[in-house]
Amino acid sequence: MSERDPVTVIGLGLMGEALAGAFLGAGHPTTVWNRTAAKADRLRAQGALVADSVADAVAASPLVVVCVSDYTAVHGLLDPLGPVLYDRVLVNLTSGTSQSARETAGWVAERGGTYLDGAILAVPQAIGTAEAVILFSGPRPAFDRHEPALRSLGPGMTHLGDDHGLSSLYDVAVLSLMWNILNGFLHGTALLGAAGVPATAFAPVAKTLIETVAGWVTGYAGQIDDGAYPALDSTIDTHLAAMEHLIDESVAARVDVELPRFIEALAARAVAAGRGGDGYAALIEQFRKPAEA
Amino acid sequence: MSERDPVTVIGLGLMGEALAGAFLGAGHPTTVWNRTAAKADRLRAQGALVADSVADAVAASPLVVVCVSDYTAVHGLLDPLGPVLYDRVLVNLTSGTSQSARETAGWVAERGGTYLDGAILAVPQAIGTAEAVILFSGPRPAFDRHEPALRSLGPGMTHLGDDHGLSSLYDVAVLSLMWNILNGFLHGTALLGAAGVPATAFAPVAKTLIETVAGWVTGYAGQIDDGAYPALDSTIDTHLAAMEHLIDESVAARVDVELPRFIEALAARAVAAGRGGDGYAALIEQFRKPAEA
Repeated sequence: MSERDPVTVIGLGLMGEALAGAFLGAGHPTTVWNRTAAKADRLRAQGALVADSVADAVAASPLVVVCVSDYTAVHGLLDPLGPVLYDRVLVNLTSGTSQSARETAGWVAERGGTYLDGAILAVPQAIGTAEAVILFSGPRPAFDRHEPALRSLGPGMTHLGDDHGLSSLYDVAVLSLMWNILNGFLHGTALLGAAGVPATAFAPVAKTLIETVAGWVTGYAGQIDDGAYPALDSTIDTHLAAMEHLIDESVAARVDVELPRFIEALAARAVAAGRGGDGYAALIEQFRKPAEA
Repeated sequence: MSERDPVTVIGLGLMGEALAGAFLGAGHPTTVWNRTAAKADRLRAQGALVADSVADAVAASPLVVVCVSDYTAVHGLLDPLGPVLYDRVLVNLTSGTSQSARETAGWVAERGGTYLDGAILAVPQAIGTAEAVILFSGPRPAFDRHEPALRSLGPGMTHLGDDHGLSSLYDVAVLSLMWNILNGFLHGTALLGAAGVPATAFAPVAKTLIETVAGWVTGYAGQIDDGAYPALDSTIDTHLAAMEHLIDESVAARVDVELPRFIEALAARAVAAGRGGDGYAALIEQFRKPAEA
């Protein structure tokens, strides 16, 4: 008999297979299920038990990890189940909204189970390594109880709080930050490209700038939590003047001007609200309210 | 007599004073001029020569550095000058557009001088240190001739190319990247803040993500220069689905939804253009053309 807790993984896409493989690798008796059974073959060869049904898979382990394409698929699998969810901890790593997570938590609770939502900030190849970050939200005791098994997926298993919606919210917040960084890089690349500068010439300058800005967010976060935004270097007034240059250059280069105009309009709203002499973090107040229609 | 070349600095705001101080510190005979003469007092005490007029200041040194508030101020100072610009290298570190830089280059050339435009990516306190980056554009021989003096400002003095507009373009491209990163961080902070998460809780996650993305731009730049955007992990189709979650969450949290909608619309245009199966760098094509009206 293994001393490790049994674990079930439902859904064997690239990510689900990586998750199950990590549990197996850490010595957990692992039961798997997938709609297309052939996808379980490699895991079976590594020692996984392949369940004949979702109900059998859920019954097999106190910890049940679900990783499928979307919440419609989650409900398609779980809704037919009844008492088998009793006393199970269901960890859903499927991407969705915070509202879906909270609703599913209620649905699982009605059936006597406990729900943890999770967001994977990693590619499948990183699962089981130090690069894998998974953010969990839901009842802390359920996370603590199963943390030893979950840490098979990597040391970066993080509990955010009891609100089941937090992992989805962090997920989109982090993705949004990523898209914004990449969009900023691509816009600059397009602007310089119009003057004949290759992307690979801009990249090292961009990389240095991105790394520099990474060092600023901790200080800005402190200002935001304090509700005071002293300008340590440039004021929003100064930024606004440079933003007008960005618009002029984008128009002249015939590249996208919508993103520069958003940037400028946001700062202009802050100036109109009396924040022109403050530092950039004061723009948090503009993001907290929807743009005027 | 000093072996170092004489240098003139015109404009003694915080940045101009830092520039002149760095030249003095490196042993260059330094002449300064400022509209309000009292601002030269500290530099005079450090050994600077204080010129009585702009013409005298320009006549004093083969290298003349101008750092004032904007191009209107530049022209207000220089336009009355005539033959004194002959054989001078004028380095303008005043922020402006690439078109202003190119026009000013022509104007200086007509008077027998040589023009270099520069963009300072540093705060005044960093001038003279390893953190100071200044990007120069204009004729390479003029930069090479005066590089020893310019390196008094720090080791990060970089010549971008002969096109006088390049330093302004890099400047706004880098600033735009900075604004986009900060906006992404602030939007995520607002979104999580609506669920009660402090900015200081999000900051370490955001910092890690920003540093991670910094490592990607070199690879994306290579794809852009090659004109091929294979998806190494997520496709634009996959991103687009997650972007819809970002919009839903932003609407539900009653925070700004304009930025998420820009992000989503851009990706949707790429999908409509047949790029759904490509990686994120394919969005460069959308930034290269203005958004549809």
